[in-house]
Amino acid sequence: MSFSFTILGSSSAVPTSDRFPAAHVVNIHERFFLADCGEGAQIQLRRFKISPGKINHIFISHVHGDHTFGLFGLISSFSLLGRKSDLHIYANPLLKLILEDHKKYYYEYPLPFRIIFHPIGSKKKDLIYEDEKVEVHTLPLKHRVPACGFIFIEKAPMLNLRKEMILHHKIPVREMVNIKMGSDFINEKGETIPNSALTLPPFKQRSLAYCTDTKYTESIIPHIKNVDILYHEATYLHNMLDRAAETGHSTARQAGQLAARAQPGKLIIGHFSARYKTTDILVEEARSEFPETYAAIDGESHHVEQVRVAR
Amino acid sequence: MSFSFTILGSSSAVPTSDRFPAAHVVNIHERFFLADCGEGAQIQLRRFKISPGKINHIFISHVHGDHTFGLFGLISSFSLLGRKSDLHIYANPLLKLILEDHKKYYYEYPLPFRIIFHPIGSKKKDLIYEDEKVEVHTLPLKHRVPACGFIFIEKAPMLNLRKEMILHHKIPVREMVNIKMGSDFINEKGETIPNSALTLPPFKQRSLAYCTDTKYTESIIPHIKNVDILYHEATYLHNMLDRAAETGHSTARQAGQLAARAQPGKLIIGHFSARYKTTDILVEEARSEFPETYAAIDGESHHVEQVRVAR
Repeated sequence: MSFSFTILGSSSAVPTSDRFPAAHVVNIHERFFLADCGEGAQIQLRRFKISPGKINHIFISHVHGDHTFGLFGLISSFSLLGRKSDLHIYANPLLKLILEDHKKYYYEYPLPFRIIFHPIGSKKKDLIYEDEKVEVHTLPLKHRVPACGFIFIEKAPMLNLRKEMILHHKIPVREMVNIKMGSDFINEKGETIPNSALTLPPFKQRSLAYCTDTKYTESIIPHIKNVDILYHEATYLHNMLDRAAETGHSTARQAGQLAARAQPGKLIIGHFSARYKTTDILVEEARSEFPETYAAIDGESHHVEQVRVAR
Repeated sequence: MSFSFTILGSSSAVPTSDRFPAAHVVNIHERFFLADCGEGAQIQLRRFKISPGKINHIFISHVHGDHTFGLFGLISSFSLLGRKSDLHIYANPLLKLILEDHKKYYYEYPLPFRIIFHPIGSKKKDLIYEDEKVEVHTLPLKHRVPACGFIFIEKAPMLNLRKEMILHHKIPVREMVNIKMGSDFINEKGETIPNSALTLPPFKQRSLAYCTDTKYTESIIPHIKNVDILYHEATYLHNMLDRAAETGHSTARQAGQLAARAQPGKLIIGHFSARYKTTDILVEEARSEFPETYAAIDGESHHVEQVRVAR
């Protein structure tokens, strides 16, 4: 059961020769979610062997070009390739106007599929997506324009039965779903067999917080506590703190400080200013606050293993 | 004195993992012209070590997404990097409306530089750009929407003086420009020294014809005769001739046939459909008509040497 985060683009507004603008793929149980869609996202998907057709839900943190310019090409290619399934876009309502305007000019419209636009706010945490495996919540961020992060949470999967116990207690099939969902079992003698004796320890619910673009803001800490992966922007080094504050961005040290308080499994920093030829110095700075820090690198994936928790 | 053609993107509408959408750089005497600006053009410029800031003139063949979606990011980056110099865009007037609409939504506007929009037609050949080194003409093409190619012609440079003749004939400095421009010289004794005895043979004027997107159309042949480089689209193999005709594109064989009649120095085919994993078979097909055919490959440059012509 996959849970991974793939970076398609790790640059901030101006891309470099090896860093595309912001776009990321979250894969939870082979559901593929796009977090932001900067220029070239569709090309990066193909380069990194993720079929664009698998993308049904696109979450846009805020309506700046480096997070949205890839939508035009992606939608156009979907149209030309005859996509039929609905495409859901979650973003500030401004993006809807942009897409409406755009549609007036390009021949790929009308599209052979529906775009279902979900306007999202950025004032409070909201559940904006849910299916049987995944929840996605917004997370208010502090940028120059309305912006929000996204928290992707794997829902608790059903418990796995211990096969030997099924036989031993002669558990009928009709009871199995209840036990998988946590119930105890009462056998023919009227004895209660506790659920923990019948099932393997549950899997930990995996989670990822995607936080860009934003100033350092402690208000998000309660919501991202102990996530497996915290992606946080780190546009600048801390010696450019003034510039970061002025433009609504964070420094690498601030991303590390935030992680030190939220204690994620790992911190991935990205959205790097083009002025940094390598990201080593940014990682080093963040690591001084939170050692488990890694640089976002275009094409790299971070996987979270499925682990059982003690009970 | 450079004259080169660099491919930034060789795909047709849907890009592949190694072929970006249409964008090309023509470098004539270190003036850099962009021919089309598909998604990711600014990234490709950086990857191939061409400073985007050198681009002052952008020629758009037609207003389809795969030829224009890179403009948004390029203009945005120019703005963020504080560009001051005018940016000239030559395109169908529809593109002006798109850029105007776009400007309403993104924060990089107002821009710190001017966009000077030059509306171009596609009914007849027009001179649309001229400086002391270069002329650019439109070339009507046949596509589903108004489309035109571009012919880039190096102006005849001034002649080079033979140094030994300057000394021998005691040519005064004030006469030199006239001689460089082709005049004979009358010496102190009243004798006429013919220009050909005073100067090296002239350089051939180099030229490039850029033809995409278009059906096979013989009407362009008189205008592209003997160009040094003919870039012509070859979206499909000839076994998809019907599809090519229907979508307003050419086959590789047709590109070769056109070259066989126009006799360029070389034919470069591009704008390949994503269905072709490699371009070998397309090149092979075009070569059966015109042997000096090469596939456009993202990042490759074709240089035309400066050669003197006999007189």
